[in-house]
Amino acid sequence: MEIKGFKFSAVEASIKKPGRLDLGLIFSETPATVAAVYTTNRVKAAPVILSMERTEKGAAQALVVNSGNANACTGKKGLDDASEVTRLVAEGLGIPDESTIIASTGVIGVSLPMDRIRKGIAPLIEGISSGTLGDVARAIMTTDTFPKLETRAGMADGKPYTIAGIAKGAGMIMPNMATMLAFLVTDAAVDWAWLNSIFREANGSTFNMVTVDGDTSTNDCSMIMANGAAGNRPINSASPDSLSFLGLLNEVLSALAKKIVKDGEGATKFVTINVQGAVSHAEAKRAAMAIANSCLVKTAFFGQDANWGRILAAVGYSGSQVNPDLLDLFFDDVPMARNGVFAGGDADALGAEVMKKSEFSVTVDLTLGEGKATVYTTDLSDDYVKINSDYRT
Amino acid sequence: MEIKGFKFSAVEASIKKPGRLDLGLIFSETPATVAAVYTTNRVKAAPVILSMERTEKGAAQALVVNSGNANACTGKKGLDDASEVTRLVAEGLGIPDESTIIASTGVIGVSLPMDRIRKGIAPLIEGISSGTLGDVARAIMTTDTFPKLETRAGMADGKPYTIAGIAKGAGMIMPNMATMLAFLVTDAAVDWAWLNSIFREANGSTFNMVTVDGDTSTNDCSMIMANGAAGNRPINSASPDSLSFLGLLNEVLSALAKKIVKDGEGATKFVTINVQGAVSHAEAKRAAMAIANSCLVKTAFFGQDANWGRILAAVGYSGSQVNPDLLDLFFDDVPMARNGVFAGGDADALGAEVMKKSEFSVTVDLTLGEGKATVYTTDLSDDYVKINSDYRT
Repeated sequence: MEIKGFKFSAVEASIKKPGRLDLGLIFSETPATVAAVYTTNRVKAAPVILSMERTEKGAAQALVVNSGNANACTGKKGLDDASEVTRLVAEGLGIPDESTIIASTGVIGVSLPMDRIRKGIAPLIEGISSGTLGDVARAIMTTDTFPKLETRAGMADGKPYTIAGIAKGAGMIMPNMATMLAFLVTDAAVDWAWLNSIFREANGSTFNMVTVDGDTSTNDCSMIMANGAAGNRPINSASPDSLSFLGLLNEVLSALAKKIVKDGEGATKFVTINVQGAVSHAEAKRAAMAIANSCLVKTAFFGQDANWGRILAAVGYSGSQVNPDLLDLFFDDVPMARNGVFAGGDADALGAEVMKKSEFSVTVDLTLGEGKATVYTTDLSDDYVKINSDYRT
Repeated sequence: MEIKGFKFSAVEASIKKPGRLDLGLIFSETPATVAAVYTTNRVKAAPVILSMERTEKGAAQALVVNSGNANACTGKKGLDDASEVTRLVAEGLGIPDESTIIASTGVIGVSLPMDRIRKGIAPLIEGISSGTLGDVARAIMTTDTFPKLETRAGMADGKPYTIAGIAKGAGMIMPNMATMLAFLVTDAAVDWAWLNSIFREANGSTFNMVTVDGDTSTNDCSMIMANGAAGNRPINSASPDSLSFLGLLNEVLSALAKKIVKDGEGATKFVTINVQGAVSHAEAKRAAMAIANSCLVKTAFFGQDANWGRILAAVGYSGSQVNPDLLDLFFDDVPMARNGVFAGGDADALGAEVMKKSEFSVTVDLTLGEGKATVYTTDLSDDYVKINSDYRT
């Protein structure tokens, strides 16, 4: 798979334990249109602060990213370090410093090991003749157990183009501060204002349904670079090709988001939470998030326990408008509760069968209105605790 | 310890596994003034709905409580069952049905085993000649590992009185739906309006700092009965004894709240979270709750990992007003971060020593204002997952 005009590289800079790629580079041979969304956490990592300034201008040519160290809560030194990294990369590539953006993920509160990173930059730049986007996907992994890469092909003005994206993010997803990074590249030409608006919206309906919102890490960031090497006229809202581009963009983001959930730390289940019949989309999402975030619900998933009462209780405290006597609840297609009480019959046995699957859905119908939302989550396993209690050791 | 005019009883009604008390009774020989606070969950258990109606009237003479079954999400049958239980108890005691209140805790969504409860009521009532409040404390345990009982002695109008309380509640406390029940009794005479107002406030500054708020179970309830058997004039806001009564009430509630946290499911650490320097108490509490609820922070506590960055990140996403460059953070008295960055020196080694203790404090100073709040929490261990994934099996 080629994405015209883009080159990639990844090296081992010994930021992480030996034997793992930890420094990656995405390079566009010409300046690319860029759009990005960042964490809403008020404690922002140095690379986020620096990249926010730079992507606001709408153009970028290189992205350098490291794993193993978040460069967060590192004060002025952190900002200086991030600036030095982009400057060294820009010098090596022969491009302006301002068109180089940066991202980091890993431990919070420890300064970047600049000696090792400085040494890694020369081989990183040399590597762009032979590296792939898949290499960069591996370089951004922290507790991820597999690299996450998605590619889609489209046509604009009769010219073929590609949208490709990589992501990292495990964490329990959603609950708290799971760092989520996503980088997309496309050789389609895309109007900057339109890209900005659709990219924000597309993140809202994909990644934000599995993570972020209030609960974002210091380093979360999702970014797209469009370099126009496909040769089409820039796609905007009036283009005949805008809908198909939007569809492919959503496919890439949505597929990456699901991979992140599937790779949730210690996760043994992939659970789709549907809430329908709410008075609005926002109310449906709030109820779905309360279910998806409940430690008691998630441990019941892990234990394969069809404990539907915990789910109704989460809906009850979510703050969404609910009438307890009108709640219907399903595990896949099995009705577990009707009008707020146990559905009876074989429900317990059938529900228990659903819970044994590695992927299933929970649907709650509030039967009040038309609002609906879908959220993806995992179970909470003893391995999650193990992974996160040993993270720094 | 005697609380004049109160009698207690507890029996095994086979609601829980054999060999455990699961039905309890508190009886006042004369009608007592009653005040109560209940879950804010919109999905309320049947006993909560029934008791809310009855305690509103301000007087009660008996409380019957069962563990092993929450009688929540049980619809009209649940309400009928709760009513039948209070009626049978009232008949047995020879008091009006309306002065009997009820509480339940346990599995959600399953109807009460009425056959077994009916059979248990006669021995329950017979038992009031010999039972103790400690027996009732044992009868309300679910995943609790020890009964929770606190007693304080005071004087009003020169008459000695006692305030005693029992509580149950383990769950992870705070995060989600940990059922919390607390029942206090005092033989002091207390003015009803004043008792209502101070009891609500005292719960807000004790139990609500470890639990409830938005995240309450279907069954949470905290209640006090004051029967006046001590012979004092009813204490009100103008009484010379009001402050000492308030102090003792707070002591009982606060001691019970701490015992609930210490008994958190699978907990190996008791952690006090102090947030100071916030622009208001509410903002301080919001930041403290974000820390106390973070799965990543709590797993780090379990792993004895001095991962202060996760704590600052939780403060950052809490929604409280913060300036990331002004944050100070301490583990006990050890400064871990100053002005948002690592404090340096021996902090890592000293912080790691603190984390090894079974009880320690985390203090975050936002250095913006005078608002402060203290919240109690536990670590998140693999045992928590085990307990909650196997809960119904």
